[in-house]
Amino acid sequence: MTFKERAKELVAKMTLPEKLSQMRYDAPAIPRLGIPGYNWWNECLHGVARSGRATVFPQAIAMAASFDDELMETVADVIATEGRAKYNEYRKAGDTARYQGINFFAPNINIFRDPRWGRGHETYGEDPTLTAKLGTAFVNGLQGKGKYRKADATLKHYAVHSGPEDLRHTFDVAPSERDLNETYLWAFRYCIKHSDPSCVMGAYNRVYGEPCCGSPFLLEEKLRKEFGFSGYVVSDCGAICDFNENHKVTANAAESAALAVNSGCDLNCGNAYQWLKTSVALGLLSEETVTRAVERLFEARIRLGQFDDDCEYDSIPYSVIECPEHVALSRKVAQDSVVLLKNDGILPLDPKTNIAVIGPNADERSVLLANYAGTPTEYVTVLEGIREAAQGKVGYAPGCHSYKIQGADFDATTMPDAVIAAKAADVVVLVMGLNPSMEGEQGDAFNNSADGDKLSIELPESQKALYREIIALGKPVVFVNISGSAVVLADQDKACNAVVQCFYPGAQGGRALADVLYGKVSPSGRLPVTFYASDDDLPPFEDYSMENRTNRYFKGTPTYAFGHGLTYTEVTETWVDEETVTLSNVGNTDTAYSVLRYKITPEEKQLLGFKKTFLKAGQSVTLKVEDVTKF
Amino acid sequence: MTFKERAKELVAKMTLPEKLSQMRYDAPAIPRLGIPGYNWWNECLHGVARSGRATVFPQAIAMAASFDDELMETVADVIATEGRAKYNEYRKAGDTARYQGINFFAPNINIFRDPRWGRGHETYGEDPTLTAKLGTAFVNGLQGKGKYRKADATLKHYAVHSGPEDLRHTFDVAPSERDLNETYLWAFRYCIKHSDPSCVMGAYNRVYGEPCCGSPFLLEEKLRKEFGFSGYVVSDCGAICDFNENHKVTANAAESAALAVNSGCDLNCGNAYQWLKTSVALGLLSEETVTRAVERLFEARIRLGQFDDDCEYDSIPYSVIECPEHVALSRKVAQDSVVLLKNDGILPLDPKTNIAVIGPNADERSVLLANYAGTPTEYVTVLEGIREAAQGKVGYAPGCHSYKIQGADFDATTMPDAVIAAKAADVVVLVMGLNPSMEGEQGDAFNNSADGDKLSIELPESQKALYREIIALGKPVVFVNISGSAVVLADQDKACNAVVQCFYPGAQGGRALADVLYGKVSPSGRLPVTFYASDDDLPPFEDYSMENRTNRYFKGTPTYAFGHGLTYTEVTETWVDEETVTLSNVGNTDTAYSVLRYKITPEEKQLLGFKKTFLKAGQSVTLKVEDVTKF
Repeated sequence: MTFKERAKELVAKMTLPEKLSQMRYDAPAIPRLGIPGYNWWNECLHGVARSGRATVFPQAIAMAASFDDELMETVADVIATEGRAKYNEYRKAGDTARYQGINFFAPNINIFRDPRWGRGHETYGEDPTLTAKLGTAFVNGLQGKGKYRKADATLKHYAVHSGPEDLRHTFDVAPSERDLNETYLWAFRYCIKHSDPSCVMGAYNRVYGEPCCGSPFLLEEKLRKEFGFSGYVVSDCGAICDFNENHKVTANAAESAALAVNSGCDLNCGNAYQWLKTSVALGLLSEETVTRAVERLFEARIRLGQFDDDCEYDSIPYSVIECPEHVALSRKVAQDSVVLLKNDGILPLDPKTNIAVIGPNADERSVLLANYAGTPTEYVTVLEGIREAAQGKVGYAPGCHSYKIQGADFDATTMPDAVIAAKAADVVVLVMGLNPSMEGEQGDAFNNSADGDKLSIELPESQKALYREIIALGKPVVFVNISGSAVVLADQDKACNAVVQCFYPGAQGGRALADVLYGKVSPSGRLPVTFYASDDDLPPFEDYSMENRTNRYFKGTPTYAFGHGLTYTEVTETWVDEETVTLSNVGNTDTAYSVLRYKITPEEKQLLGFKKTFLKAGQSVTLKVEDVTKF
Repeated sequence: MTFKERAKELVAKMTLPEKLSQMRYDAPAIPRLGIPGYNWWNECLHGVARSGRATVFPQAIAMAASFDDELMETVADVIATEGRAKYNEYRKAGDTARYQGINFFAPNINIFRDPRWGRGHETYGEDPTLTAKLGTAFVNGLQGKGKYRKADATLKHYAVHSGPEDLRHTFDVAPSERDLNETYLWAFRYCIKHSDPSCVMGAYNRVYGEPCCGSPFLLEEKLRKEFGFSGYVVSDCGAICDFNENHKVTANAAESAALAVNSGCDLNCGNAYQWLKTSVALGLLSEETVTRAVERLFEARIRLGQFDDDCEYDSIPYSVIECPEHVALSRKVAQDSVVLLKNDGILPLDPKTNIAVIGPNADERSVLLANYAGTPTEYVTVLEGIREAAQGKVGYAPGCHSYKIQGADFDATTMPDAVIAAKAADVVVLVMGLNPSMEGEQGDAFNNSADGDKLSIELPESQKALYREIIALGKPVVFVNISGSAVVLADQDKACNAVVQCFYPGAQGGRALADVLYGKVSPSGRLPVTFYASDDDLPPFEDYSMENRTNRYFKGTPTYAFGHGLTYTEVTETWVDEETVTLSNVGNTDTAYSVLRYKITPEEKQLLGFKKTFLKAGQSVTLKVEDVTKF
């Protein structure tokens, strides 16, 4: 029997109330049918998240900067391995709480449309092609190729979802048909065709007036009919109550729940589906439709091996969590995601250089983790990583608060101390940027300015003041920006000897960054987002038109373009034909290198594909870069 | 000429407005007289604070637990050395901002009357004798014995100040005469007699109806006439505006400022003294009285060497900051402040033991620093310290939030992970307690329950739930409580194999704790506060009567008494006479040991003195323990 047939048979034995109970994320046990309880709410954006110990990989946006879909697939496989190990152990103890299951609400393949969006760092950036390839790799790695599914992946948030966070429960987006298909839905369509994801999560917002989790257009017409999706759909957490409470498209929760299930939303993260009995009683929902949803859910659970004794993943031991191989992989991904934006030759640093590490992000643990993270047993901050690698003196001062202006309240007076440290050094490594309290999800980031979003992409004034003081000293400066999104680095590009972008780099981040700064590895990351020169370059945040946004459509000149990224050597690209390129490392340093293939017209600059490879010094390689936009 | 004479001469050249300007904490320069600007607001409670890099020693309450006044004097001398080094460097750059000066608002010698007081961890505990000896040692170490004063110490908060934090700007205390003299003022009197402190800071509250910074009774009658204080008095920050705004004992700020200066408060931390011109104009304050205040301030500045070229401390280089010797001292103090409360023989741990380190304080940096701290360049958390010392496996899980109940919001589900880690280990090291966001100063600690104070001395329910789960496993458990105050450990005393109290232990804290846990050093700390068995043992928080409070007067049976503290050996005390004792280390382990001398009557148990010494295994020493209450 197929998983689908087994699900049909099992669900046929359930009463209606039993069926309805299984559509909640915290599905209770049905002992008479041998069905254990199961909690569907689980996270693994960049490692098993919110469930205690786990290898914490770089944040999604950082992994995107590696421009390496093969590496992404390996990472996702490791995440699934750790997820299985935890699930096995939890199950032994009879635990079925949130964050203990084996389906996951990742990857986030929304388009990072505007750099002010707080959740942008959960995504793979602004480009549909990059997003689609990395999302596909993540799904394939997570779900595995076994007899059973290793873990369920969830494409989210479907669809047209990218802020503002404070409007997400009421917002209605009406993108042009072209933007809808070529930008907002494109990666979903690609991933579904190339990776068979188990699940899709509906977003909070509305599209063309329909709430995403209750949209026949999005869920039936597009997702299932056009894209061929055959899995289950889950609501974002609380999104269905929004129908009546915030979107006001239904009169009450029973109507909202019915609309969602009738539209094809099978599982409710939130509590709207406690009203499903009423929905059925009122004739708003048929048992056949309920059965369809529950069958999809049980097909998934059976396919995960939850009802069999021969699942190949049941023997994965807890000892794989943060094993040396996984931690080493996290470090490698972090290395590969560092983006060298400018270098006048100061990098790599001679290990014997006396340096001063300055800035509020230098010794800050939260920037390693970003959001939706697990708990590592070892954090290596930038300062700690540098100290481990350096052979010269390493001075240190935070120099300022991340965003509070010096002198407020009883804050420390720390800038002079930073100046002292800088003066005593030969080179200053200035480590600034954002942190997850300054950009994040509604209710999760506490910047108090925009509910998780940023009002400006400039660095905060507290950091700018410190920056000016340090620059005024005239010392050589390596500027390291740690953030999950583009910030304005126009001044840095002019005044600093080197500029390095480090997206939230995971628990081993400091070690990986030091590997790059001291030349243990050549940087090979590329920007997955455009670094605009100023706030003035940005259309209104609420505007979902792609006109003059992102590398593909932006008409202006950014400080650093999408795809920009230097190495410690020179690699020449010689295109033999449209898809064949010869890469030659003509320098003296080994490096990884991502080659990007574009279609450039007067209207747009479209990324068609990319491929990462490793080139020893002097080595040439000829390879094909597939146009992934044709399928 | 004496410093006093020079001050008189210099102040005589000032106009009245110039004099008044010098009574503000941010005293401006008077270029025509060659007087540079100076900011009097500087902190150094347990290391130079809020001024960037510094060696971060254990919090004051932890240093108190070492019961070692000689060590305290050494620490204070090192703090002054680092303060001078920073001051020298700041001065070179022309910086005169807050936290850059060389007078300090420390030590805090208030009596830790009630364990719920949020700022209690800034003190030396609940006992006047211990507080007096340690305060004296701190002042002597900080001020030095040179031609110039190395740094100015400030006894604070004078007087009768120990919460509640949320009432501090309005509270009026009327202690009995005995409590006033034997408890609240005693340490101030002792320190003034034995260490000549430069400064005393007036508290926010009132005593007998008079606001402390405007109290002729406290500042004239007691402080200067009875105790013989000859230095300057500073207000707590904002305390003088409280006179009219909150205490309502004056009608406006000009009256408040006049009352303060007339009472002998020479310097204003805050901005009330901007009204002094008005005070003088209204005839509320004479120029003679102003001159007296300003002369005291300039005597201090001149005595600090600010107007001379031959100050022996001007050559202290910046390189002393966090030099290896200072960091090693911080680690030693942290070792000596660990208090072993119970041990069934499980400690010291065999380094090869496979352990699980569990609890929200295990890998938490904030508990190393506590409040009023500098910025270290290296933090060693408990987990990191243990990992460095261990030769067996070290599992880790935080297991719960410090106080948020699991399951709220989108918090991580972490308890099962802790259970898994515990099950895999031979011994569980459970690291719980409080953190500086749960106990602290008004506006500074964000526990949202009591404005810095605690409502209960029980551990939060989130931690109790984890504790119950771990204990239920039946594994050997070493319970490490990290906090700045007493918490209820009654259950732990029954159920755990060992109980260790670690007050906020400074930047090297994790390393120091590991030194103790693995037996590199024997613990030798003693409790500077009573660990009550329950909230029910506490009189109302607002009650300033000492009846049935603290070791001296408490009638009940605490879980662990003030002065309690075990070692890894056995030391016998044989009293030869009232003040002479023979200490014999009859075990096989070297240890430091503090001997305490009490006077015990049916009414009270009074600490008369104490002395710490080092005893090799088998060694006996006879020494005298002075009765310091007689002077």
